[in-house]
Amino acid sequence: MSPPCVPAVLALADDALIYAQRLGEWISRAPQIEEDMALANVGLDLLGRARSLYTWLGAVDGSGRSEDDFAYWRDEREFRHLWLVERPGGDFADEMVRLLLMASLDVERYAALASTASVAGIDELAGIAGKAVNESTYHRDHARLWVLRLGDGTEESRTRMNAALERVAPYVDELFTDSWADRAAVAAGIGVLPSSLRSSVLGYVGSVLAEATLDPLPEPAWHARGGREGLHSEVCGFMLAEMQHLARSHPGATW
Amino acid sequence: MSPPCVPAVLALADDALIYAQRLGEWISRAPQIEEDMALANVGLDLLGRARSLYTWLGAVDGSGRSEDDFAYWRDEREFRHLWLVERPGGDFADEMVRLLLMASLDVERYAALASTASVAGIDELAGIAGKAVNESTYHRDHARLWVLRLGDGTEESRTRMNAALERVAPYVDELFTDSWADRAAVAAGIGVLPSSLRSSVLGYVGSVLAEATLDPLPEPAWHARGGREGLHSEVCGFMLAEMQHLARSHPGATW
Repeated sequence: MSPPCVPAVLALADDALIYAQRLGEWISRAPQIEEDMALANVGLDLLGRARSLYTWLGAVDGSGRSEDDFAYWRDEREFRHLWLVERPGGDFADEMVRLLLMASLDVERYAALASTASVAGIDELAGIAGKAVNESTYHRDHARLWVLRLGDGTEESRTRMNAALERVAPYVDELFTDSWADRAAVAAGIGVLPSSLRSSVLGYVGSVLAEATLDPLPEPAWHARGGREGLHSEVCGFMLAEMQHLARSHPGATW
Repeated sequence: MSPPCVPAVLALADDALIYAQRLGEWISRAPQIEEDMALANVGLDLLGRARSLYTWLGAVDGSGRSEDDFAYWRDEREFRHLWLVERPGGDFADEMVRLLLMASLDVERYAALASTASVAGIDELAGIAGKAVNESTYHRDHARLWVLRLGDGTEESRTRMNAALERVAPYVDELFTDSWADRAAVAAGIGVLPSSLRSSVLGYVGSVLAEATLDPLPEPAWHARGGREGLHSEVCGFMLAEMQHLARSHPGATW
């Protein structure tokens, strides 16, 4: 029987995979060539994390699926990532706000996963989660330094950062919305409810914004919803098509 | 006075930067998720190499330019990379042929640069080149294993590999065409003429193709020319626009 935490772990893996793709799009396009490498390295950390989680899932969920099966052979409705991570990049300020939010969330949710999985004796999952905490702590610090630099920089960079906060704000609430998968995992003693992390994660993000002399996260006019149930924005299909095209046009393992 | 090897080293740096961008485009799009990470890591090696070379160049060419100045503030005609590296990716077989060619060339031209720079007492350049040899040896092995796997795989993968060889063949001759910059550097005792590497590099590549039971590199109907003089194909402008857009829309160091 598949462990009750499987759907919640799948959602974490999908967050990592989809965000890795968005971060990879920055290669050679960041405002500084040094930053290209930094963002690409964050993306590679997340891709490695997704791979470890998919491999673990395939071993325990009874399906025998490989990491490639999870990444390339599921349809849009089977992906469980948050709307925030599938947002197209484009503006560097938006990317730094997204990274600050996601890394702050990851530090806390993977820390809870590491400790609960360890107590439950699921050592491999605990190990993956522990590595994620270390990586995301570094990602969070990286985003924080950029937010400080941009917020406290020129008048233009401040204006752009505040505009980025307006654009990202509708995606924040979903980060702290509990899904049935989260509830099933927590009922089995694994992980943590996202709603319980809201005040600490947003408290941290708010303190960074204040230190950067930026506006607080604004109250949005609408809220993104449904990623955890497989409902995604219209960009998701294009993104998956691009990602899955090559593997799907040549099924079979000979590649 | 700027050392005579500067234009030749700039061409090497541009090869690395432009190819890094093309490799970054594979993130989450390779036929296997493991391969995404491998290609992204090759791209990061090349990006790091470009950065080291640009930084060295800015220090010795008297211009005081930074790595960002080289990457983001030169126009198309000032870029000196080979046509092969700016080719859009798209087909994985093409990418493996390109990687086999470029890594095989890099192993040899950076080995020559490392030893000649060392003899000339240009230790920093020798160090960068020595690191490049190690990295490119790994890249070459990676490409070789894929070419063997694809060539000796299914009938379809063989057919696709042979089609890739047809498409890449027109870009090969330029790799071994001496530019005035190469001649100036070699006259000053630094580096090696590309023409002198033709038989060993193509000998190695040919041996891999033979081992993979593939056709030899075909004789092309036309030859790419002019990259070293700043003449590029029509894709170069789009690529640079995408790469340079963000840095150029926000001049100044506050980012």
